[in-house]
Amino acid sequence: MPPLLRGSYRRVVLALARRAVLGAGPRCFAGGSGCARDSPFGAEELRGELDRFGGVSVRLGRLDALDPVAFQRALQAAVQKWRSEGRVAVWLHIPILQSRFIAPAASLGFCFHHAESDSSMLSLWLGNGPSRLPGYATHQVGVAGAVFDENTRKILVVQDRNKLKNMWKFPGGLSEPGEDIGDTAVREVFEETGIKSEFRSLLSIRQQHTHPGAFGKSDMYIICRLKPYSFTINFCQHECLKCEWMDLSDLVKTKNTTPITSRVARLLLYGYKEGFDKIDLTMEELPAVYTGLFYKLYHKKLPDNYKTMTGVD
Amino acid sequence: MPPLLRGSYRRVVLALARRAVLGAGPRCFAGGSGCARDSPFGAEELRGELDRFGGVSVRLGRLDALDPVAFQRALQAAVQKWRSEGRVAVWLHIPILQSRFIAPAASLGFCFHHAESDSSMLSLWLGNGPSRLPGYATHQVGVAGAVFDENTRKILVVQDRNKLKNMWKFPGGLSEPGEDIGDTAVREVFEETGIKSEFRSLLSIRQQHTHPGAFGKSDMYIICRLKPYSFTINFCQHECLKCEWMDLSDLVKTKNTTPITSRVARLLLYGYKEGFDKIDLTMEELPAVYTGLFYKLYHKKLPDNYKTMTGVD
Repeated sequence: MPPLLRGSYRRVVLALARRAVLGAGPRCFAGGSGCARDSPFGAEELRGELDRFGGVSVRLGRLDALDPVAFQRALQAAVQKWRSEGRVAVWLHIPILQSRFIAPAASLGFCFHHAESDSSMLSLWLGNGPSRLPGYATHQVGVAGAVFDENTRKILVVQDRNKLKNMWKFPGGLSEPGEDIGDTAVREVFEETGIKSEFRSLLSIRQQHTHPGAFGKSDMYIICRLKPYSFTINFCQHECLKCEWMDLSDLVKTKNTTPITSRVARLLLYGYKEGFDKIDLTMEELPAVYTGLFYKLYHKKLPDNYKTMTGVD
Repeated sequence: MPPLLRGSYRRVVLALARRAVLGAGPRCFAGGSGCARDSPFGAEELRGELDRFGGVSVRLGRLDALDPVAFQRALQAAVQKWRSEGRVAVWLHIPILQSRFIAPAASLGFCFHHAESDSSMLSLWLGNGPSRLPGYATHQVGVAGAVFDENTRKILVVQDRNKLKNMWKFPGGLSEPGEDIGDTAVREVFEETGIKSEFRSLLSIRQQHTHPGAFGKSDMYIICRLKPYSFTINFCQHECLKCEWMDLSDLVKTKNTTPITSRVARLLLYGYKEGFDKIDLTMEELPAVYTGLFYKLYHKKLPDNYKTMTGVD
């Protein structure tokens, strides 16, 4: 399998992190077969940067003067040249106000890879067989907070302002871009209920596909265990119909809840009675090898002697 | 907080699942203030469907004859009308070959919400304050398989074909759209190493933001425990430099690995010596309340008596 294989996780990361910048485009327009003749102005802006996997990246930042017909001819000639040079893919970065260049590119086989805010990225696979380009984000992440007060055995629950099925559930919502799981839980709990809390652990992960609320993408829904440090409810009237501190035993018993809430209530009961280490995934921050960034890692607590031991024997 | 609040997870799901269809557009063009006059052809296609949160959705499927200038005038008049009617948002669905309508919409304040393959969606927030529209997918999901053979205490590891840092790691890669976590692990292990395996449990979750390999989005990286049922390595020469069955103790000892691999090796050692129930998140499939779909839920194994008990006392 060639290196641009879609499934090749680490390799794709490296490719984009360490893209080699190389002006591959201009030669096309200086000596190319038609593009220089057909598009005398602006064409020199159609510069390609070669990435280390053999793809070419073109940024259409300054093509104000180029008309779509001339652009299409120039792009067609450039693609032909890149193909003959063995390039495997072309990426087009298009500012939203230059979107008149999208349809001409599409007519040459380009598709949207993604778009966000004020720009879009199109891609064209030139390699053999089906495209092996990496995809775009596939999941939204929602997080709920199971705020449990060990002293009173009470758990914080809400009913959505939804007239069809008013079921008790944990407050929660979608993560903002770049927001950590625990921070989403704490923020959403506060916004919905007015309760302040701290992250304790990650309890469960749900994966669901073709999610109607995710524009057809997949949904990852995570429930965290939180510890309250305020107790007076001041719930959001727009979002919630009801909000209360409920005895954990009552939440376990009620039929007026979702399967996942009931399951996590039982998990909490197990943790409450036999130790939260039975149910918790704890969190630790570690450095990333390649990027210099940090990440948060969640798993069952590892005893200290295993963290430091040097082998089995 | 109004109901379209971005963080309101369940409400957004419901909104999109049960969108009420209502032709809100045509009245604009029949009696509107200028749009019918300025764009005599095609304007009747600019139909809006009202959603239950007060947003209007417009599909530009059949506007072949409309020119961008006429479209912009029609859209401007329609937006003015929707705003006066108290609509909070407008969604524009634009087929890629109609992308000449994107820049005119952008000049009225529309932005890309997302784009994929052969269409894009733009949005414009009309409500008070900053936009509370739900975002698009924020995470890519990568999965690795820690294939551990309890009989021999061997673990399957690879080195990427990366000249800079050849570290031992678990085989893995990005999830395909709609693919379950466990299926990604099994598929990637097979593609990279030729080893067939079965999903056993989920071991760890890593969250990392502004990921260079995720086009700036966030990355969720999950490691699963797999059980091998074939043992002869036939690794992918394009992706891997080396692949071997390594004694788990050696993987725990080596410095030639990533922090997360070392951590999970230690977690596996703990599970091997003291029981995998200490480290495993088991998986169960459950029905979704609202959509009729099924989802997969991962958490620490819950003893059977807790699954059936009706309360604490």
